[in-house]
Amino acid sequence: MTGAEAQPFRFPVRVYYEDTDAAGVVYYANYLRFMERARTEWLSAQGFELANIEREHGIAFAVHHADIRFHQPARLGDRLDVTVAIRERGQVRFVAAQTVRRGDALLVEAVITLACLDRQWRLARIPASIAARLENTV
Amino acid sequence: MTGAEAQPFRFPVRVYYEDTDAAGVVYYANYLRFMERARTEWLSAQGFELANIEREHGIAFAVHHADIRFHQPARLGDRLDVTVAIRERGQVRFVAAQTVRRGDALLVEAVITLACLDRQWRLARIPASIAARLENTV
Amino acid sequence: MTGAEAQPFRFPVRVYYEDTDAAGVVYYANYLRFMERARTEWLSAQGFELANIEREHGIAFAVHHADIRFHQPARLGDRLDVTVAIRERGQVRFVAAQTVRRGDALLVEAVITLACLDRQWRLARIPASIAARLENTV
Amino acid sequence: MTGAEAQPFRFPVRVYYEDTDAAGVVYYANYLRFMERARTEWLSAQGFELANIEREHGIAFAVHHADIRFHQPARLGDRLDVTVAIRERGQVRFVAAQTVRRGDALLVEAVITLACLDRQWRLARIPASIAARLENTV
Repeated sequence: MTGAEAQPFRFPVRVYYEDTDAAGVVYYANYLRFMERARTEWLSAQGFELANIEREHGIAFAVHHADIRFHQPARLGDRLDVTVAIRERGQVRFVAAQTVRRGDALLVEAVITLACLDRQWRLARIPASIAARLENTV
Repeated sequence: MTGAEAQPFRFPVRVYYEDTDAAGVVYYANYLRFMERARTEWLSAQGFELANIEREHGIAFAVHHADIRFHQPARLGDRLDVTVAIRERGQVRFVAAQTVRRGDALLVEAVITLACLDRQWRLARIPASIAARLENTV
Repeated sequence: MTGAEAQPFRFPVRVYYEDTDAAGVVYYANYLRFMERARTEWLSAQGFELANIEREHGIAFAVHHADIRFHQPARLGDRLDVTVAIRERGQVRFVAAQTVRRGDALLVEAVITLACLDRQWRLARIPASIAARLENTV
Repeated sequence: MTGAEAQPFRFPVRVYYEDTDAAGVVYYANYLRFMERARTEWLSAQGFELANIEREHGIAFAVHHADIRFHQPARLGDRLDVTVAIRERGQVRFVAAQTVRRGDALLVEAVITLACLDRQWRLARIPASIAARLENTV
């Protein structure tokens, strides 16, 4: 599986009233929620459940840096695709490139850096079983 | 009132970090978001899209009364089913009975009264095409 | 302090884009967030901080029942007042009557029943120091 | 660029349960909500209300690019300060540098580019009266 770029993970998101604001479009912070849903489902597709990772490994993944470009707005009722592609993987961090699309239109794109943190919120090594999967998808 | 009770509409919802709070459970207001998603998808399954209803008929459905009982909490990663069953239908209002379940466990139940409102936020008759569908599901 | 009814606790809330939806009004679930802010600040005014209550007493207050009537919508930029008045207090539960107002206009009113829960999410007695304050405000 | 750096606009934000997630900290997307509140109040302090700007000028400000660094987490009950300082101002865009602090601790910092858009969501000139104020604060 080389083609993370060629075939990123895709997760469908529908836009409900809760996601929109009085400007008639999706509220900007909510794209970050859509992106987190896609990352969670991507991990789930790799065999890892966030709720278990915390319990079993005592670690969590926290967003450390987010760079987001908002090109076009999504609107009520839209059916979106949110993609995830792993770009880089270090000992304690990894980088995900994500997009939000409506059909062929690119609405939002982001580069999200996630850090692996222990229960005291200090940097920790990504558990080996998860790190191996991050390798395979790059 | 026959089939609606027997087989209410079911919509699956997954619990993500965005839905939870520092008590480790789904934040209470967020069940109302899950319920709105289910109502929207139920309407969609009847052939009506909220975004179009507003444009075509100049009306919107607004929650007028909500009575919600919180029995057990949902947690990160849970796969929930949200149900919708229409209970009553008037000229300008209808009542939906909704539940949130995790497998057989009843977590939350609500009775939600929705009012049909025009663009000036005044009570308006439910459009005939939609009213007919509300009939059929009761 | 007899007049809880006469002079309920008031907490100001401003409506931002995040609170509104594509219908141009505050999204219905968000009034529950406003009400929780007011309850938290009311407790804070009594000398209790939620974050400490959990740590010191091992308990949390969870909403068990909410009955909410939506009379008029709030809109972007509105300056609202959210009120809290304690109605009843039992060993493990108390009831708060809450309103959301814009000037003299009553927008939303709710009766919220809160239960005191321990870390296993079982009913627990309200700690005596807090119970005493709930008494004084009724 | 003198006084803006020295004395950026400060807006206080309290952390409630609604803002936190099951990791026990503020959910990452919610810092963007705090930052929008601060920008809105900063505009309000300059004499401009978002709700009126849309009505009077037919324009809205939309976030076009956000670069956000998450250094330390905020937690339930925290009293935060959110700052706004205007960095650059063009014909159709301006850039705000924002921080979220708890006392002296820098929790989050962001560079937010906002675009002025008309009702068709096309780039539009920032109205002269608002542009003048953006000048004065730099």
